Amino acid sequence: MAGSSVQFKELKRDTKSAARRGELKTPHGVVETPIFMPVGTQATVKTMTPEEVREIGGRLILSNTYHLYLRPGHRLIAEAGGLHRFMNWHGPILTDSGGFQVFSLGPLRKIEEEGVRFRSHIDGSEHFMSPEKAVEIQEALGSDIAMAFDECAPYPCDHSYALEALERTSRWAERCKRASCKEDQALFGIIQGGVYRDLREKSASDLVALDFPGYGIGGLSVGEPKELMYEMLEYTIPLIPNDRPRYLMGVGSPDCLLEGVARGVDMFDCVLPTRIARNGTVFTQHGKLVVRNAEYARDFSPLDPDCDCYTCRNYTRAYLRHLIKANEILGVRLTTIHNLYFILKLMHNIRVAIDQGRFTDYKKEFLSRFTIN
Amino acid sequence: MAGSSVQFKELKRDTKSAARRGELKTPHGVVETPIFMPVGTQATVKTMTPEEVREIGGRLILSNTYHLYLRPGHRLIAEAGGLHRFMNWHGPILTDSGGFQVFSLGPLRKIEEEGVRFRSHIDGSEHFMSPEKAVEIQEALGSDIAMAFDECAPYPCDHSYALEALERTSRWAERCKRASCKEDQALFGIIQGGVYRDLREKSASDLVALDFPGYGIGGLSVGEPKELMYEMLEYTIPLIPNDRPRYLMGVGSPDCLLEGVARGVDMFDCVLPTRIARNGTVFTQHGKLVVRNAEYARDFSPLDPDCDCYTCRNYTRAYLRHLIKANEILGVRLTTIHNLYFILKLMHNIRVAIDQGRFTDYKKEFLSRFTIN
Repeated sequence: MAGSSVQFKELKRDTKSAARRGELKTPHGVVETPIFMPVGTQATVKTMTPEEVREIGGRLILSNTYHLYLRPGHRLIAEAGGLHRFMNWHGPILTDSGGFQVFSLGPLRKIEEEGVRFRSHIDGSEHFMSPEKAVEIQEALGSDIAMAFDECAPYPCDHSYALEALERTSRWAERCKRASCKEDQALFGIIQGGVYRDLREKSASDLVALDFPGYGIGGLSVGEPKELMYEMLEYTIPLIPNDRPRYLMGVGSPDCLLEGVARGVDMFDCVLPTRIARNGTVFTQHGKLVVRNAEYARDFSPLDPDCDCYTCRNYTRAYLRHLIKANEILGVRLTTIHNLYFILKLMHNIRVAIDQGRFTDYKKEFLSRFTIN
Repeated sequence: MAGSSVQFKELKRDTKSAARRGELKTPHGVVETPIFMPVGTQATVKTMTPEEVREIGGRLILSNTYHLYLRPGHRLIAEAGGLHRFMNWHGPILTDSGGFQVFSLGPLRKIEEEGVRFRSHIDGSEHFMSPEKAVEIQEALGSDIAMAFDECAPYPCDHSYALEALERTSRWAERCKRASCKEDQALFGIIQGGVYRDLREKSASDLVALDFPGYGIGGLSVGEPKELMYEMLEYTIPLIPNDRPRYLMGVGSPDCLLEGVARGVDMFDCVLPTRIARNGTVFTQHGKLVVRNAEYARDFSPLDPDCDCYTCRNYTRAYLRHLIKANEILGVRLTTIHNLYFILKLMHNIRVAIDQGRFTDYKKEFLSRFTIN
């Protein structure tokens, strides 16, 4: 840890929950935690310029190794001077390992001890991803934080398969660590183990022994009930050393962010806010609103009267509905800005609430207004 | 003219050509001419926010009556407080009459003396557009400049049909004038007559007699050779009173803008720059460049090394190609910004060149570098 290019510092701990404020030092700047990372799958946070991402509060973004490996290719990005320069984003970047995407390919992939054989979803070409390859690609991309190549077991999944997957993940994590040699890139391990306490314990124990500078908690938010996810977090997080950041992968709905923070999560990412935005669904203080619905055709109020984002300051639901119905790009730009702002503002409010010792009240108040569906 | 809400003033005339500098006063501000109007068909300049349009030099935009009438409907826009408020654009707006779009529907429309019966391209519903209806819709939209409902004859088109269409256009122009009663909206007539000198003369004579505050030159750039368009301009423009702006409709390629200005055109609009941008084709000082082509995959230079637009200052051809190949919205945003900036900067340079008495030299110099294709 002393030698890692990424350092986590806990600044304040909540008294009524496991929530904590911290900061994460990376080669491209310090970020405040708990943090939500906007997703820039293909070297762009969909619809947005880097300046816009920054303006609405984005500080650390996630990009996808699997997608960039296939298109435009990690070597091309290395030639361009790395991902930061290629996409003109000069803040920190975390890249996932490609594992989750490769395992999501279903019949298009085959798992072996050495790695995973898979076919590209773009052109059907055959590829092989291994722990060493995942590290090589992420080093070429030059992200600040790389993730170890893991096997994310599905839900539901029986105990014996979940065990097999986590043991492979531990062996692969060790291979990733051995392969990793870029000084200004930190490698995080990923804890697996499905929804089994004993397996979460085993996975955490294996990975903590490898002394990673940060830990992803994987294999959650894959279809299990939220209560089960929360239970797994409560059980897993105390197994991670306090001075390491805890990153809950693939989680981004407002209620899950609050519940995750309450259990000690420091980092989140999710395509949810941007994906539903492109489909015409937006967050408000009262829950989701499908602005493409006919009932908003003549609604000349903003998406969320309590929001001060660019979209809400300048446009009506009626106009946004029109743009989305007419397939106008500005429509999805404006809903994306709103949804990401909503989530990033929520994280800001969470950080302030922890600082001021009133996180539990803030959480309760937010959830009393917000209808989960 | 004294009572019109839109006033044109000629500021300077070129000595070696018919080019002229002027300014057009509208209820939403004064704009410098010659001007290119970005097209915001469906109440949005495709992919851009109003602030972005303004930042790259857009001052007067065009919006389409036909499209807005069908979706979201002119009454809804009137309820929203008019088109300016609906779309958050506070500069001047010109709306076309819907004539060109309706006539482009081909078998979906039927021309009668009273007006045109047509079917919506969206849902097949039946509609009727007349001169009075076109005025009513444009008054509901609240544009600064409305266009008279005209019949745009196709190319090629025989003399007798072109005559019939222009005579109907003259009768319709008179009906539009009678129907028009909004004090802060100016109504421009449209000169038709195909590629026949005698018909252009007749059309201009009919319309000038109606004393419009400005004149569109329609029925050009519809498939005829460019030389024929230039010839028609040379013949038609002197027939329009000097104190009225001349608007060449649907023209926007760099060479045509220069040749149009040289013949005395004050206003242009065209979807070309934004449409080709969305297809991955951009303007450079040397002509068009298809950035989606494989040859640019590893080209880490800007689209146009001589350009100082946001796109060229921050992104490479390789990145833009990647975004466009991956269907990322940011790609078409960035090429749209570049292409519109290119055209608006060209118009700026044209205005400066006229002011400095060197327009003909500037035109020659530009065209010596720029390959037309």
